[in-house]
Amino acid sequence: MKFGTRLIVAVLAAVVLGGAAVGVAAKKKKKGDPTDKTVNVKSQLKPGPVRNVILFIGDGMDETAVTAGRNYHLGANGRLMMDRLKLAGSVTTYAMNELMGSKKPFYVTDSAASGTAWATGQKTGLFRISSEAFTDKPLTTIAELAQRRGYRTGNVSTDSVTGATPAVQMAHVRMRNCQAPGDGVCLTDAKSEGGLGSIAEQAADSKMDLILGGGRGDFEGTIPAGPDTGKTVIESAQRQGFDVIGTKAELDSYSGKKRLLGLFADGTITPEWNGQPAMREGFVAQRCETGKRPAEQPSLTNMTKRAISFLNKRSKGKKKGFFLQVEGAGIDKGAHAANPCRQIGELVAFDAAVKAGIQFAKKSPRTLVIVTADHGQSGQILPGPGADKSAILITNEGERMVMGYATAKNDSSQEHAGITVPVRSFGPRAANLMGLKNQTDIFDVIVDALKIRAKK
Amino acid sequence: MKFGTRLIVAVLAAVVLGGAAVGVAAKKKKKGDPTDKTVNVKSQLKPGPVRNVILFIGDGMDETAVTAGRNYHLGANGRLMMDRLKLAGSVTTYAMNELMGSKKPFYVTDSAASGTAWATGQKTGLFRISSEAFTDKPLTTIAELAQRRGYRTGNVSTDSVTGATPAVQMAHVRMRNCQAPGDGVCLTDAKSEGGLGSIAEQAADSKMDLILGGGRGDFEGTIPAGPDTGKTVIESAQRQGFDVIGTKAELDSYSGKKRLLGLFADGTITPEWNGQPAMREGFVAQRCETGKRPAEQPSLTNMTKRAISFLNKRSKGKKKGFFLQVEGAGIDKGAHAANPCRQIGELVAFDAAVKAGIQFAKKSPRTLVIVTADHGQSGQILPGPGADKSAILITNEGERMVMGYATAKNDSSQEHAGITVPVRSFGPRAANLMGLKNQTDIFDVIVDALKIRAKK
Repeated sequence: MKFGTRLIVAVLAAVVLGGAAVGVAAKKKKKGDPTDKTVNVKSQLKPGPVRNVILFIGDGMDETAVTAGRNYHLGANGRLMMDRLKLAGSVTTYAMNELMGSKKPFYVTDSAASGTAWATGQKTGLFRISSEAFTDKPLTTIAELAQRRGYRTGNVSTDSVTGATPAVQMAHVRMRNCQAPGDGVCLTDAKSEGGLGSIAEQAADSKMDLILGGGRGDFEGTIPAGPDTGKTVIESAQRQGFDVIGTKAELDSYSGKKRLLGLFADGTITPEWNGQPAMREGFVAQRCETGKRPAEQPSLTNMTKRAISFLNKRSKGKKKGFFLQVEGAGIDKGAHAANPCRQIGELVAFDAAVKAGIQFAKKSPRTLVIVTADHGQSGQILPGPGADKSAILITNEGERMVMGYATAKNDSSQEHAGITVPVRSFGPRAANLMGLKNQTDIFDVIVDALKIRAKK
Repeated sequence: MKFGTRLIVAVLAAVVLGGAAVGVAAKKKKKGDPTDKTVNVKSQLKPGPVRNVILFIGDGMDETAVTAGRNYHLGANGRLMMDRLKLAGSVTTYAMNELMGSKKPFYVTDSAASGTAWATGQKTGLFRISSEAFTDKPLTTIAELAQRRGYRTGNVSTDSVTGATPAVQMAHVRMRNCQAPGDGVCLTDAKSEGGLGSIAEQAADSKMDLILGGGRGDFEGTIPAGPDTGKTVIESAQRQGFDVIGTKAELDSYSGKKRLLGLFADGTITPEWNGQPAMREGFVAQRCETGKRPAEQPSLTNMTKRAISFLNKRSKGKKKGFFLQVEGAGIDKGAHAANPCRQIGELVAFDAAVKAGIQFAKKSPRTLVIVTADHGQSGQILPGPGADKSAILITNEGERMVMGYATAKNDSSQEHAGITVPVRSFGPRAANLMGLKNQTDIFDVIVDALKIRAKK
């Protein structure tokens, strides 16, 4: 009897365990080959709808800049936030050769023509800010289209907010250096000439909900014509509904209901890191100095998080979400100055801001995040100091990385390069930016995602 | 009455057309938003099984090389074959810093260490051909693993087949320049020293079904030891079952049943295009000269098509398919020589070979095609002639493209650069190569796809 019971228990156990085994086998079969991640990657490709778009622009952030940042900060086999985004592509960045009277390509762009391409969907000539080549016609931007349809819009940069990249979303001038009232280069764009005014004036006149960055100096000039004649641009912005702030503390504690203009530096926000620029001789292997940004200036991550929370709060419960552009401007500036530590520090800071965007998108799954750049730069990672100027960095993994710069023999600014730039995206409709794209495709993907395309 | 009939016809028409309209609406709904290509892109992500793998390596083919080729040949907004592949990523290419006694990264690789990474799944020191850093242990290659499991294997290059990239699949030497018997650099790798012999000897001793490229000179030397002592490497290859051919005509008409060794040039196969190399002064805008390869040498596309057909025929009806590696070697060589026309001509030729691979994969859907590069190069597309040496090309769309080279002040060879390189893939399991990858991941993806991983 005892034996019989044991037998029955054993038989029952066998049936149960056998069933379990079958269950495991079935599960395994369903899971497929563990070495093949296709199903997992496929699940990251989601169609619309899209409520929010965050567009991250690393100025001058080509694959060299990303690789140098990865090598230094995390090691060659480390992974930045943007490296973790599986939906990848490259973007062509050429401008229009307007200076030579041609509508065909000029193969190396500047930030102005480049930004105009993604902000308006149209290629233009060098130096133009959302202004049509040959005709000077203002080109409507993503931010303007979004504003018309009731989206909240924001613009964040470590550059002066009158710099080319933030400017392309909210201003229309022929020459990017028309940044402040009275800038001679403004010519017929000046308000005194009946134009829309300098970039600072147009930012104040814009319908942006939030503008954060540097460039206070450009807002202190006096407006020469129009309803705010004699006022500073800051006063004009205030009259038109902006609260204007100037420190990280004010940004962190801001709880007002107005639109927000944060100007945290006279010019650009101070780069996070610094170091010796590349030299022609006497190379010394160096470690980058970190912590260079003064505490009263917010970090790019800080501004990005505040911007997302600001725009998200104001669109909460509404039909339409927000469009936010975030620029990491210092990558390019570090490269122009042949200063790899500055370049890398800003790349690392930019990547941290991207992380804040991805974290938001994970909680708000109707958010499309796009990470890309405006153009390449001529700095390179080389086996030794064979270029015109070189810098040797000791990376965090303890190895020597040589950065070479060779396009400013007269010690002027290093040149841009005509290489395609990376694009990585996340969220619904991100699949539309896989493979090779033109910068104007970024415009198309965003306006189609938010359904804000202008009627023809 | 007439009016009544008309009314009935009209009502019937309305019902019919209305029904059609409903049909159209239903179809539209099923298709979704035509601006969102997610579903289409998603359908390109297919899980295994994989029967054949074709691995295309553009030597030195970074995003600059691809962009320069696109700009010149098709215009900045044109699309190469590889540009059309949506499943995209970037690949880190660092080597191991063995020369400094470190197992940590050296940030700029050469073709030997780079090739070893994807061919064996292990990082190694510079100059090593599938040979372990510090220990000199031979590292098993994809081709060798595939041969053990009954796959057909092929190796195609415009380089000498003893060059680093083809070599990594079929040879194991410490120094890549150990290419022919008697090469002094072979040291203990020489057969006379009890080693496996030079790369040419190891190719002859290999189980490759097909080897096509240049390098006949390396096969004419005499074998110093072993069963084929006193024979040339060509005679040794013949004894071991290879038919050895030397012209395009012989390749096109080959219908033998043996394994095939095609050596179509003494050294490398002649580049397709040529032009003036970059200079320090006296720049003249130039058009590239095409048609430089002699008719008796096959093109890369020619060799690729023949290789695919050869391997496919021999695996037809068998359980296992084939593994084929195809290298476009001249992109790198053109860049080293600061000769943009050569570089671009070889890029264009490489892209045509990729097209042949994709065409086969479309007909044989269990084929995985991978297109990538081994390392970056220091040539750049610049706004003007600001680098050490420059060349100005008039592209096919009639605009000026300036290429700058600046890492060989002493007129030696231009340097490699430590930028990540593109990867584009097509076919089942291609999704495993999206986003940022390490070169060793390419090994993993291929051995897992073909299920040829060595048992531990």
